[in-house]
Amino acid sequence: MISEKMVDYVKGSSVIRAMFEEGQKLAKIYGEENVYDFSLGNPSVEPPAKVKEAIVDIITNENAKQIHGYMLNAGYEDVRTVIADSLNKKHGTSLKQDNIIMTVGAAGGLNVILKTLLNPGDEVIVFAPFFGEYRSYVKNFEGELVIISPDTDTFLPNLKEFYDKITSKTKAVIVNTPNNPTGVVYSEKVIMALAEVLNKKQDEYGTAIYLIADEPYREIVYSNQEVPFIPKYYDNTIVGYSYSKSLSLPGERIGYLVIPAEVDDFENVVSAAGVATRILGFVNAPSLMQKVIARCIDEEVDIEVYNRNRELLYNTLTEYGFECVKPDGAFYLWMKILGDNEAEFVKKAKEFNLLIVGGSAFGGSGYVRMAYCVDYDMIVRALPAFKKLAEAYQA
Amino acid sequence: MISEKMVDYVKGSSVIRAMFEEGQKLAKIYGEENVYDFSLGNPSVEPPAKVKEAIVDIITNENAKQIHGYMLNAGYEDVRTVIADSLNKKHGTSLKQDNIIMTVGAAGGLNVILKTLLNPGDEVIVFAPFFGEYRSYVKNFEGELVIISPDTDTFLPNLKEFYDKITSKTKAVIVNTPNNPTGVVYSEKVIMALAEVLNKKQDEYGTAIYLIADEPYREIVYSNQEVPFIPKYYDNTIVGYSYSKSLSLPGERIGYLVIPAEVDDFENVVSAAGVATRILGFVNAPSLMQKVIARCIDEEVDIEVYNRNRELLYNTLTEYGFECVKPDGAFYLWMKILGDNEAEFVKKAKEFNLLIVGGSAFGGSGYVRMAYCVDYDMIVRALPAFKKLAEAYQA
Repeated sequence: MISEKMVDYVKGSSVIRAMFEEGQKLAKIYGEENVYDFSLGNPSVEPPAKVKEAIVDIITNENAKQIHGYMLNAGYEDVRTVIADSLNKKHGTSLKQDNIIMTVGAAGGLNVILKTLLNPGDEVIVFAPFFGEYRSYVKNFEGELVIISPDTDTFLPNLKEFYDKITSKTKAVIVNTPNNPTGVVYSEKVIMALAEVLNKKQDEYGTAIYLIADEPYREIVYSNQEVPFIPKYYDNTIVGYSYSKSLSLPGERIGYLVIPAEVDDFENVVSAAGVATRILGFVNAPSLMQKVIARCIDEEVDIEVYNRNRELLYNTLTEYGFECVKPDGAFYLWMKILGDNEAEFVKKAKEFNLLIVGGSAFGGSGYVRMAYCVDYDMIVRALPAFKKLAEAYQA
Repeated sequence: MISEKMVDYVKGSSVIRAMFEEGQKLAKIYGEENVYDFSLGNPSVEPPAKVKEAIVDIITNENAKQIHGYMLNAGYEDVRTVIADSLNKKHGTSLKQDNIIMTVGAAGGLNVILKTLLNPGDEVIVFAPFFGEYRSYVKNFEGELVIISPDTDTFLPNLKEFYDKITSKTKAVIVNTPNNPTGVVYSEKVIMALAEVLNKKQDEYGTAIYLIADEPYREIVYSNQEVPFIPKYYDNTIVGYSYSKSLSLPGERIGYLVIPAEVDDFENVVSAAGVATRILGFVNAPSLMQKVIARCIDEEVDIEVYNRNRELLYNTLTEYGFECVKPDGAFYLWMKILGDNEAEFVKKAKEFNLLIVGGSAFGGSGYVRMAYCVDYDMIVRALPAFKKLAEAYQA
């Protein structure tokens, strides 16, 4: 009786989520300490102490009707001003509150902007491997996903194929840097090359091609590599942001869209995004959390915790003979499978109570993704299991 | 450059929201105390004190990663159990946590269930006048809205027309009792009559027709009239609930769906609704608020405040010669216009700084809706303006 589209969705439901839910079952059987769940990007670092303080202070001292009431669909104006000012300070931009729309996380924001932009049949380009949910988000609005195949040497965009696959129907391109699932960070040079291709193609077709930068991992970067703020390099850039990772608040569903005044058809895009926020059923981003964000604008989580995990996992797994991309950002390790059957590799890993997600879920078959936003001790306990997994293929 | 559908949406954007935003502008010009804004259903009663206590207690004593982290897409299992138990106690049902899906408000819940059920071209029946956003929610999934014309004597469902308009393509029927915009509450007898029609038509066509009960106003009822729990009368009922009004938390976007085990294709409907929650970009209902709800399950706001407003507004306006439906629930007054031009009546009202919403926004032309969830004193100050409005038509 359910919708035909949903039948497919239910069948092919998120492998990541299925794995996460299976992990909870296995934990009940084998004990939580004997299951090594690398499936989900659920931050293991606590939110900054300031988040707690801000919540208590707001709840104690501000007017309850204001805290929990309706506001403009785009969010509280003062909160949006704080965010715009903070971005300006960091990136030398001139954003105003009109350029910010508060959203129900980055997932909510991406749905809002795709609803705003897509006509049925419009093409949206992604670079493999990519966050698998993009498939559903694009399909929600009858867009066509166009996948650029991975450059397995660098996992940076394959520019030649990108150039060739842009058509007059290309409405948007989604980039995600720092990247889920590879941990790769695009340099300024890469962003400039992407912008060059896009500008050429916009001129060639006389169209607007929006670059949607999905940036929940912006602050999760190791070493000193800079993460370029893409609107500075390409006018038609719209940024989707989330505090899920940067403040460890994934359950609270709080983020924002940046729609710079430079984008084509700015007034309409902003108005339509506000309306889309409402009619998709979000109405507005959760009100208390908006206010918390404004108070915590300069806070960050301790990413040294993730860095320690990264070093341990990467160094040990490569030592065991696995081939991994060393991640510069985010908290995922992208690893080549042993043997030539991804499903079997994932299954074999599960025999050792290792929960890892097959790369096909990200359009990157022959690989697996491990979320290392987990307790350090779990990694330590999991290492012998990885060793056994390697040995199982060396026999 | 925006999507063609959105061009229409932006043009025809919510009249209610437009009015609300205009009210804020007028308030800047004339002073807040001289603008009488009856446009938006933004509760004027504070949330119960227990909400504040619960937030502070949870934030102070529970684990921050748990409070703000991911959980199952359907929500925390313990929270859903508390809600199921509470419904069982009130209604004598046997719901379990599996029957509850936490949602981003009722608007989020309705979008989730419509995404779950609708194939393109499926028909969804609503009874005029109805909450105007249903149009967009149904259109989001390419459903066809079928409107049953109002019975202007009672504003109860026109059963004859309902019977005639159900077809083999009818997939869902939305009812909203206590009703926005009329304040009418459906009695048990009305619900039973609706169920009888639906059962007959299900048999006739061999289809499943889901009755979606949109119930954000369930607890906002005056007098002792009971609000029947519709799943007890019709097996294929799915309830959408929100704490926006019952706990005055509209900005927090917290509610739930009830999907009883009796509905056709239960397993698939529940699975698909969980997936829909994720892929529409909600992911899950805001986490802290889920926990707050569980602590405040027996709380309610002081509806005597709304009752006092209702009596003052209804009694005075009828005294001035306006024809109104006396509301039994919700916090809206549905009033017949003077003259025969709704747009002109609304405009004339605005000349007296009265912000009221034209009934056409609800599929009920010739009427206006006034949200009386406002300060009592504002109603007192507004009464002379209503008097002048009446006089303007008596000249």
